[in-house]
Amino acid sequence: MSAPKKVVLAYSGGLDTSIILKWLQTEYGCEVVTFTADLGQGEELEPARQKAELLGIKPENIYIEDIREEFVRDFVFPMFRANAVYEGLYLLGTSIARPLISKRLVEIAKETGADAVAHGATGKGNDQVRFELAAYALNPDIKVIAPWREWDLTSRTKLLEFAEANQIPIAKDKRGEAPFSVDANLLHTSSEGKVLEDPADMAPHYVYQRTVHPEDAPNEPEFIEIGFEKGDAVSINGEAMSPATILTKLNEYGGKHGIGRLDLVEGRFVGMKSRGIYETPGGTVLLEAHRGIESITMDRGAMHLKDQLMPQYAEIIYNGFWYSPEREMLQAAIDKSQEHVTGTVRVKLYKGLASTVGRWSDHSLYSEEHVTFEDDAGAYDQKDAAGFIQLNALRLKLLAARDKRLSK
Amino acid sequence: MSAPKKVVLAYSGGLDTSIILKWLQTEYGCEVVTFTADLGQGEELEPARQKAELLGIKPENIYIEDIREEFVRDFVFPMFRANAVYEGLYLLGTSIARPLISKRLVEIAKETGADAVAHGATGKGNDQVRFELAAYALNPDIKVIAPWREWDLTSRTKLLEFAEANQIPIAKDKRGEAPFSVDANLLHTSSEGKVLEDPADMAPHYVYQRTVHPEDAPNEPEFIEIGFEKGDAVSINGEAMSPATILTKLNEYGGKHGIGRLDLVEGRFVGMKSRGIYETPGGTVLLEAHRGIESITMDRGAMHLKDQLMPQYAEIIYNGFWYSPEREMLQAAIDKSQEHVTGTVRVKLYKGLASTVGRWSDHSLYSEEHVTFEDDAGAYDQKDAAGFIQLNALRLKLLAARDKRLSK
Amino acid sequence: MSAPKKVVLAYSGGLDTSIILKWLQTEYGCEVVTFTADLGQGEELEPARQKAELLGIKPENIYIEDIREEFVRDFVFPMFRANAVYEGLYLLGTSIARPLISKRLVEIAKETGADAVAHGATGKGNDQVRFELAAYALNPDIKVIAPWREWDLTSRTKLLEFAEANQIPIAKDKRGEAPFSVDANLLHTSSEGKVLEDPADMAPHYVYQRTVHPEDAPNEPEFIEIGFEKGDAVSINGEAMSPATILTKLNEYGGKHGIGRLDLVEGRFVGMKSRGIYETPGGTVLLEAHRGIESITMDRGAMHLKDQLMPQYAEIIYNGFWYSPEREMLQAAIDKSQEHVTGTVRVKLYKGLASTVGRWSDHSLYSEEHVTFEDDAGAYDQKDAAGFIQLNALRLKLLAARDKRLSK
Amino acid sequence: MSAPKKVVLAYSGGLDTSIILKWLQTEYGCEVVTFTADLGQGEELEPARQKAELLGIKPENIYIEDIREEFVRDFVFPMFRANAVYEGLYLLGTSIARPLISKRLVEIAKETGADAVAHGATGKGNDQVRFELAAYALNPDIKVIAPWREWDLTSRTKLLEFAEANQIPIAKDKRGEAPFSVDANLLHTSSEGKVLEDPADMAPHYVYQRTVHPEDAPNEPEFIEIGFEKGDAVSINGEAMSPATILTKLNEYGGKHGIGRLDLVEGRFVGMKSRGIYETPGGTVLLEAHRGIESITMDRGAMHLKDQLMPQYAEIIYNGFWYSPEREMLQAAIDKSQEHVTGTVRVKLYKGLASTVGRWSDHSLYSEEHVTFEDDAGAYDQKDAAGFIQLNALRLKLLAARDKRLSK
Repeated sequence: MSAPKKVVLAYSGGLDTSIILKWLQTEYGCEVVTFTADLGQGEELEPARQKAELLGIKPENIYIEDIREEFVRDFVFPMFRANAVYEGLYLLGTSIARPLISKRLVEIAKETGADAVAHGATGKGNDQVRFELAAYALNPDIKVIAPWREWDLTSRTKLLEFAEANQIPIAKDKRGEAPFSVDANLLHTSSEGKVLEDPADMAPHYVYQRTVHPEDAPNEPEFIEIGFEKGDAVSINGEAMSPATILTKLNEYGGKHGIGRLDLVEGRFVGMKSRGIYETPGGTVLLEAHRGIESITMDRGAMHLKDQLMPQYAEIIYNGFWYSPEREMLQAAIDKSQEHVTGTVRVKLYKGLASTVGRWSDHSLYSEEHVTFEDDAGAYDQKDAAGFIQLNALRLKLLAARDKRLSK
Repeated sequence: MSAPKKVVLAYSGGLDTSIILKWLQTEYGCEVVTFTADLGQGEELEPARQKAELLGIKPENIYIEDIREEFVRDFVFPMFRANAVYEGLYLLGTSIARPLISKRLVEIAKETGADAVAHGATGKGNDQVRFELAAYALNPDIKVIAPWREWDLTSRTKLLEFAEANQIPIAKDKRGEAPFSVDANLLHTSSEGKVLEDPADMAPHYVYQRTVHPEDAPNEPEFIEIGFEKGDAVSINGEAMSPATILTKLNEYGGKHGIGRLDLVEGRFVGMKSRGIYETPGGTVLLEAHRGIESITMDRGAMHLKDQLMPQYAEIIYNGFWYSPEREMLQAAIDKSQEHVTGTVRVKLYKGLASTVGRWSDHSLYSEEHVTFEDDAGAYDQKDAAGFIQLNALRLKLLAARDKRLSK
Repeated sequence: MSAPKKVVLAYSGGLDTSIILKWLQTEYGCEVVTFTADLGQGEELEPARQKAELLGIKPENIYIEDIREEFVRDFVFPMFRANAVYEGLYLLGTSIARPLISKRLVEIAKETGADAVAHGATGKGNDQVRFELAAYALNPDIKVIAPWREWDLTSRTKLLEFAEANQIPIAKDKRGEAPFSVDANLLHTSSEGKVLEDPADMAPHYVYQRTVHPEDAPNEPEFIEIGFEKGDAVSINGEAMSPATILTKLNEYGGKHGIGRLDLVEGRFVGMKSRGIYETPGGTVLLEAHRGIESITMDRGAMHLKDQLMPQYAEIIYNGFWYSPEREMLQAAIDKSQEHVTGTVRVKLYKGLASTVGRWSDHSLYSEEHVTFEDDAGAYDQKDAAGFIQLNALRLKLLAARDKRLSK
Repeated sequence: MSAPKKVVLAYSGGLDTSIILKWLQTEYGCEVVTFTADLGQGEELEPARQKAELLGIKPENIYIEDIREEFVRDFVFPMFRANAVYEGLYLLGTSIARPLISKRLVEIAKETGADAVAHGATGKGNDQVRFELAAYALNPDIKVIAPWREWDLTSRTKLLEFAEANQIPIAKDKRGEAPFSVDANLLHTSSEGKVLEDPADMAPHYVYQRTVHPEDAPNEPEFIEIGFEKGDAVSINGEAMSPATILTKLNEYGGKHGIGRLDLVEGRFVGMKSRGIYETPGGTVLLEAHRGIESITMDRGAMHLKDQLMPQYAEIIYNGFWYSPEREMLQAAIDKSQEHVTGTVRVKLYKGLASTVGRWSDHSLYSEEHVTFEDDAGAYDQKDAAGFIQLNALRLKLLAARDKRLSK
């Protein structure tokens, strides 16, 4: 790879990405464009602008954007249509944010004539893969720089020395090492590493940042009604809201009731297992409600196929293949299944648990007329079941007859 | 079908199966053998013997058996190895009990020279299918009698008239109609029908029978440790127990903490949707813990394949095909995956929620050495990730290059 | 089911459906509308009109239509996009025609105010299921009459007596029984029953109707070029043609070279196994060519997903669920995958075998630059493979290390 | 990676692996052990011994083995139980041989105290991946050396210079470059590269080495009978044979009739597409026959599941994950399905095509009694089909009713 001339850096404004910024300038002598996005991580963006300017980035090279609506509308919601969970439990909160960041990096590279993009993910994790696969899928000629895999700043001490040597301001609380590493966006907060590295040990309370301890949650349950249209949440308690607003609101509800905590050991795409603490308050409520509205509006054949496809869909996203033909194929199937997933679900929130307690819809396939224990006025002829069973049993009878024949 | 001469009836001792018993005698003039099983439903069995005798069944034709250990060991545990859930949520508590009942019915038919078996499931539900498919798979020549699909006792009034006309004792509380219908065994209690038929309405508290209301559960969490060997639970808090004992204990723990309630609308095999309230306290804890021990002992490749196969496995059991080659094939794959699923999981129980908070095992694949944020002493070379990403990206780049070429 | 007042009958003009026509008039006293379709079965349609008139059908109640283009465009081609084969071998020639016939029956019922449709399929086969599921999926209130499951004309003798008693003309060659039963349309000819019932015996030559005996095919191979756009064949040897024309042409090519014969034992949806002789000359060539064009234009990820979904897609069609949400979901995924399946394939036809021998496309993903054994000018860095392998191996190493550790 | 001290090299005796042998001695100064296997590639092994001795390998370090029986029994046959084909067409002839070679390399390393193994696969192909994943899965601490990825002998000229400088004999016909590259074993011959690199061009006749041109095959068909037990071929024309003998014989039959040629563009695991010419004469006959015996002995439910799992199973083998938990899980399922796949198939061989024309078995599930067009003496009640269809249709009717309701 020839040296990059102009690089778009995913820039948080924090110490690590500031060091990367400087390192790019120093190592490659290249022009740096910074991209700082509000994905709902809950941090002010303007300090990042000041920091970038301080580090010599030209004003026209500083991109600061609120992409929360795009994030929820085009990434989070399509994924929730699938009820996607990785390894049975993980709601993919980090995985789903990476492709969007790469998309903007590549777009800004095009706008600014940059030939490279850079990110601050390490060489051990999944995020490097997600950033880079997405970037290459969107521009096959882009260069991607991953300083953590390249440089020799391999210890905290060296990083701080580099920062000091390059006049990068170091916040007081960054002098010592953080007891764990955090990633956050509107969908979730993840915490990993250090004090969390032994999966036998219970995660300390202070790790949790977005949800109250269930023991500290309200002693009274709260009930909310979530409205859906074609598989996406569109309202809470009858009030229509934008995608990002809904997720923000659900985070408030979920967080208040201690909902959406997950202590997980997962298999990384790069081959090792890692332990993470995830908080996905709104997403956990949304998944429960989405399952609830599907339960009355989606046909059994569609649902079973969808459930069967889900694990691969989740794996594809986890592994960073959002921009791949196989994800798009599955998305086409999933979206097709959501055409009638419209209606309302009532969810109970209490002490860490979100439970569907009611659901209704004009699109309902539930037929009280058919299912009733009472007289069904001929809607269903129980005698049909005899033939149904006989023909379903036929191949089993033929198998059993063979066994009988052979055992003689 | 020619008329049966001797019928083995799945007999609970209750009003409905007593009516069936009499009806079989009356309608077919056949000898009846009763089979009453303790599957953990929580009812005394001896009254069923007295009732059977009262209805003229010969003592040698009365079979009363405790099959709880077989139920858990050979049915529940193999199913939990798969983390089986139907339509994302249902733990298959009723589905998994039916094949065992049919197995004993068919075996008793052989022992007693009976040519038919009979069950009390209606023509609208899944249970008739499960009973009959299992019976035919085990004996292709057996006759199966399903009185609810045959007789003309189509209303409560007619049933009571028949009972009275035939000197069948009617308990006082059976005069009126039950407000909902219940099935129970060691794994779960299900409630359906009547007051539950509108899925928009929250289920009344009195429906729940096996779990306390989460609001009434202890205000302090409780922590238990479940030991696993090859995928099956073998101990609680270090104390080894038999399969049925473990499930019984877990039911106590779960029930006390309000864990395992589910309000579900599901797609029945016979084609309609129905609404059920399920309580699976022990099973819910067990599923969480099993996922927990798998998370450190099972390889990613195995786990993802298993997750992908699970929905079909669950559907097969739900639909009644326990005794089918496809279930046996999947079971072989699942059992293969469990060879190292051995270790211990700590689970927190609190107000309706069971959460894994720690897990450890001699069989662990988790390598702190590899995953650590600290110096890993060369266990993992971060530079490998660059090549890994490049080759994973290659096909995406070729796709992107095509798009670029064609859009020119 | 109340008695039908007006029935649309799938009417071939042959003896059997003429008997059905008369039986419907006699049994139900209902008005009959006949629908005779040209699906490419190779029979004149006008005699069916005369026969219908002779049997008292009013001219406005006689529908005769050429639906070959719709058949190929909307049913055969979408199915071939999936490379659908049932049980590894069967190209679904009969299965795919049934939904279209039902669609027209239901549409004509609406136009003519009929309340029922009728078909001539027996109670042992799959076709009854396909006809009826499609009809019910398109109109939940339609009645479907399947005379073969209802009447008592259970022997050839009784049928002929009924025909004679009702002045139905009987062609001389229909007096005796046919040595096997045939279904045909533009995609295939199937032959079943009687002389074919022992699957150990080789099918006699005279069973084959649409393909020459490979031994009698030309001694010289023939090469044709098939053009594709978005997964559908659009030209042969550079000449653009309509869907039905292309399939007709391919049938000629394939038939001449003895291509597309299949002697199969298959598992019917109704539970038994049956043996069929299928001839699908054009379809066999088309499948080979479609695979060929996909091989250079479709990404590996998409192709592997598609291959994995195919068996269920084929089963869905075979079982008669063309009009189902799950088929539509899969179709959406499959169609998505075909957006770049555009280009040309050269196929060799010789003595029963169709083989792709060349393929090219502007949409090709094949990169000689990357794959070449010669110097690739840096397109591919072989050193990347080391990292790729290391990270793919990591989980296997962790597994092996566990085995080593535990065996100590 | 520290330098290896003793290396076991997969050694063919040819020029390339002789250069590698010398290079290992020169580059690493390490002791070399050679492993030369007869996998049925059709070459003499003794010349490899002489060559190894000439290059200074100690006699006790020269391993020459006939592993054909193990290859067919433990690798080829288990794979054929799955009817495995990659991307719809490729019988995985190269892929399946690699794990066995690695297994022996790792075993010999243990026996000889070697710390590394080496292979002669390039950095662009799949074989490097297969060799190395297998090696690491069997010994996590083994070093693997892939000279083609390391050295600077990047052109034919440099290789020949190195050979000459190191007294490696160069056969005359190796001076010029081969027009394509070949791999062979008892299952297949593959040819790639150079003259084959344009997938639009028909492969020249001289590429094919193991099968006659179909045009030159006998003008008369030949019929053979293959006997199976539990899914594996055990006899031809009634004569019992060992696994390798059967495959050798089938290769003769297939080769003589021009059967098993494949011209394929495939997606490599390393990301690019490549074009190969494969000849798998015996394997092609075996696959057809195995499908044939399964068609009468395997239940529909088992077969459909197996067909659905097959593409992933084939991908796993193609990608080199033979020794992985997921392959072992699938193998357990597949082997379970083969318990009754016992019987005989008659196959017609003619001009490139192998076709099943008859099959019979004591384990047959085919019931002429059920399927017959004649009177079936009550084996099957056609009226059962009505109920079967009604309940299968119920969910479709509910969907259609919804559409009707909503469109009002």
